[in-house]
Amino acid sequence: MQTIVIKTTPEDNVAIVANPSGLDRGAVVLNGIVLQEPIPMGHKVALKAFQEGDEVIRYGQVIGFANQLIREGSWINERIISLPQPPNLEDIPYVQRSLPEIEPLEGYTFQGYKNQDGSAGTKNVLGITTSVQCVAGITDFICQKIKRELLPLYPNVDDVVAFNHSYGCGIAIDAPAAIVPIRTIQHIAQNPNFGGEIMIIGLGCEKLRPERLLPADQNSADSSILYLQDEAFEGFGDMVDGIMQLAEKHLQKLNQRKRTTCPASDLVVGMQCGGSDAFSGLTGNPVSGFAADLIVRTGGTVFFSEVTEVRDAIHLLVPRAVDANVAQALKDEMAWYDAYLQQGRADRSANTTPGNKGGGLSNIVEKALGSVVKSGTSPIVDVISPGEKIRKKGLNFVATPASDFVCGTLQLAAGMNMHVFITGRGTPYGLAMVPVLKVSSNSKLANRWHDLIDFDAGPVAFGTKTIEEMGWELFHLILDVASGTKKVATDKLGIHNDLVLFNPGPLT
Amino acid sequence: MQTIVIKTTPEDNVAIVANPSGLDRGAVVLNGIVLQEPIPMGHKVALKAFQEGDEVIRYGQVIGFANQLIREGSWINERIISLPQPPNLEDIPYVQRSLPEIEPLEGYTFQGYKNQDGSAGTKNVLGITTSVQCVAGITDFICQKIKRELLPLYPNVDDVVAFNHSYGCGIAIDAPAAIVPIRTIQHIAQNPNFGGEIMIIGLGCEKLRPERLLPADQNSADSSILYLQDEAFEGFGDMVDGIMQLAEKHLQKLNQRKRTTCPASDLVVGMQCGGSDAFSGLTGNPVSGFAADLIVRTGGTVFFSEVTEVRDAIHLLVPRAVDANVAQALKDEMAWYDAYLQQGRADRSANTTPGNKGGGLSNIVEKALGSVVKSGTSPIVDVISPGEKIRKKGLNFVATPASDFVCGTLQLAAGMNMHVFITGRGTPYGLAMVPVLKVSSNSKLANRWHDLIDFDAGPVAFGTKTIEEMGWELFHLILDVASGTKKVATDKLGIHNDLVLFNPGPLT
Ligand SMILES: [Ca+2]
Ligand SMILES: [Ca+2]
Ligand SMILES: [Ca+2]
Ligand SMILES: [Ca+2]
Ligand SMILES: [Ca+2]
Repeated sequence: MQTIVIKTTPEDNVAIVANPSGLDRGAVVLNGIVLQEPIPMGHKVALKAFQEGDEVIRYGQVIGFANQLIREGSWINERIISLPQPPNLEDIPYVQRSLPEIEPLEGYTFQGYKNQDGSAGTKNVLGITTSVQCVAGITDFICQKIKRELLPLYPNVDDVVAFNHSYGCGIAIDAPAAIVPIRTIQHIAQNPNFGGEIMIIGLGCEKLRPERLLPADQNSADSSILYLQDEAFEGFGDMVDGIMQLAEKHLQKLNQRKRTTCPASDLVVGMQCGGSDAFSGLTGNPVSGFAADLIVRTGGTVFFSEVTEVRDAIHLLVPRAVDANVAQALKDEMAWYDAYLQQGRADRSANTTPGNKGGGLSNIVEKALGSVVKSGTSPIVDVISPGEKIRKKGLNFVATPASDFVCGTLQLAAGMNMHVFITGRGTPYGLAMVPVLKVSSNSKLANRWHDLIDFDAGPVAFGTKTIEEMGWELFHLILDVASGTKKVATDKLGIHNDLVLFNPGPLT
Repeated sequence: MQTIVIKTTPEDNVAIVANPSGLDRGAVVLNGIVLQEPIPMGHKVALKAFQEGDEVIRYGQVIGFANQLIREGSWINERIISLPQPPNLEDIPYVQRSLPEIEPLEGYTFQGYKNQDGSAGTKNVLGITTSVQCVAGITDFICQKIKRELLPLYPNVDDVVAFNHSYGCGIAIDAPAAIVPIRTIQHIAQNPNFGGEIMIIGLGCEKLRPERLLPADQNSADSSILYLQDEAFEGFGDMVDGIMQLAEKHLQKLNQRKRTTCPASDLVVGMQCGGSDAFSGLTGNPVSGFAADLIVRTGGTVFFSEVTEVRDAIHLLVPRAVDANVAQALKDEMAWYDAYLQQGRADRSANTTPGNKGGGLSNIVEKALGSVVKSGTSPIVDVISPGEKIRKKGLNFVATPASDFVCGTLQLAAGMNMHVFITGRGTPYGLAMVPVLKVSSNSKLANRWHDLIDFDAGPVAFGTKTIEEMGWELFHLILDVASGTKKVATDKLGIHNDLVLFNPGPLT
């Protein structure tokens, strides 16, 4: 049997088993290294003998220290390596240097819904935003009714989506951290896929005033906000009628939207991973990173996120900042999150899951080094705090928790119109507001979940395709999905998750 | 025109305007007090002249201090009184005394679904619990499919409800506070309305292991847990089939449940208020408190909750504890919440909403004094920490945030089978798992929201009915709703809100 193990850099003293069913004891890998025990797919084999305290190196970086003698050919897992300290934020100076020239990539387009503010939608969606959780029972009810009764009359509108959330009342609205959920709700309403047709259902007595959710330049609330406590509504029937009438006004406008040819620079692609395995850093993430570079080269926008998965690779990212301010902003977001976790008596090591470990990722350092690969190699032009909206095209670090739905929610607020989600263990993650293009890090998952995975990056592990080849394939698929000519799996199946707000402040 | 203002105790130096359209300047109330300005319904009129610093007294308690000269007949609102300090928890000693004898109330029953563990359901619901947010898109899809295809075949089953939540992964599962959401999910699956037929959908790689959600005495996971990452599932279609088969097993058992005569002592009624106004403490809450006493007299269980609305009345509650341990537990929950709020740089004054103030509640002290009235007068037999399950019958303090859905979720976890929700401003609050009986504090709301309010406690304000009369009416209505012979408004309309977990720990 052919044995396949993968080293990322020449300095690595571990390699990843790529054979789908793992390798048995006695199997010979690389230059005659004999496996001392069976090692599952995705897990690490020791390429040398380790003394206690020796550095374990992957991606050319120290991912841990041997906590016992480890023989060459042994299985290196989370139990026998100890976690290094995270890079000290004070010790990462920024040196302004000439950044690599970005070679422009021209002529790529997609069919999108151009908006007045310059952004472009990839779907044409009536979004119903709410100012408070209390109204969610009614907005859910209304969404069904609109789908049944109104949507068929407006053929150019793809969907109606209620943004139900658990914020708005019963929360400490003057706590310093309250700004995060508030601006998130505000900015989600401005997502390019909603075409500026903001519709807000409020109750009337909530702490979060619906008016705060309107863009600063929109001073009239007349056609956008409806309060259930409005004295004009005599009961539920009236409320339903009122909301249906408001929806119809917005649907009429949305129905006039048509797809037109948009430059690829209108893409705003949020990159995220979830349910990662050791292949994520070898296949899915580098392929997505390559595609990310292509999008940046067209003048488009790419987000990478997930602070706890970036924290241990921050020394590799700071040098990529376009200037000292961006470098400092990167470090500030790390410091904010360090303090946030510490307040809850946790640290970044709380990130890894049983699934990560089962998939071969021993700790957060190994996970982070594989995770940041999906940012590609472009300079980092800006840092966006949780809930803020992007200001610049190019590669942005959008600071978010790694929690899949919280990250997706914050990327939507930042202005994402296309989501690329890399997974190794598999997740049915889907969002109604933007297409979620699911990339598998290994073919085993892609084959099993044939109707849930959109793109299999697995072949890269076996050298049957290159990262470059697959990066281009993914780039083309992104353009097709953005154009509506291809649908992602979760949109075909109609499975979508609720958004989840990040509220670092207290409930009352 | 008849002027109606209400004083709660003889010591009060303010009274509440009860006339639905408020009172005009010049109106004469009580013993010739002349209004200096128009005062809206629910708001306070000064019954004397106040010097700066004078105590403002309602419910016989200091609700604030005049922060300026206030003439007799003036409108006293939140702007002209300052907030007192909350009672110092160290200064409330517990003195064991002979508690009032509870006069047993016998012969009251309802038609419920008796469970093996001794509890009784008020609905017969297939509950689908999840271990992680990732699976929610699929459980939502499945719920619809079960409703369409399976539920009609099992006529004794009322509903299928998915408990989707935002916990399970992307969270610091070893943080000290993680125990709160984990035990909440665990205990919700044991709610009496699910009849012990626990069904858990997991992903496979999440931090929260689905096995942790099973009751301690249930060691077999075979018939309860399904993982989407199970290698036996080749894609979405297989997952759907797998879940439908599991659901059918549980539906077969649930379909054998029949309503039988249960003693009223099987009631577990969660009392809560939301969107309160100044009438809440005069009408809805005392009427609910009277009904609460009746339920306790039958041997049944009543919860009151909402720590921030109890904090300023804690000195009135500690003496009602059955023993020193319960008294200490009450104070411990207050102290825990004080610290939790302080960590987020907020305090209990963050509780009041614009709606409260608009409805005449000037501050959290006034709100709390009105809020605790719904606990009735029974001794407090136990204190339940957030997410825990009750241990004793009688009046329990179930510690929760005041946030409506978070409180409701924690009351469900504690074992509630009937929810009484008092509102003055109006909220469409509804839950699928248990009936939510909505009590209006004023007839104006009850009339306007004729199809959303189940019980109008407004007549108490005008003396056309007494608290006692209406308390008995509410008690009988609770028994009818628990029996399924009357349906609450939100169940008739089919409007239900998602549950919201209390997660005081950090995201990762
Ligand atoms: Ca990730
Ligand atoms: Ca993630
Ligand atoms: Ca939902
Ligand atoms: Ca309340
Ligand atoms: Ca409440």
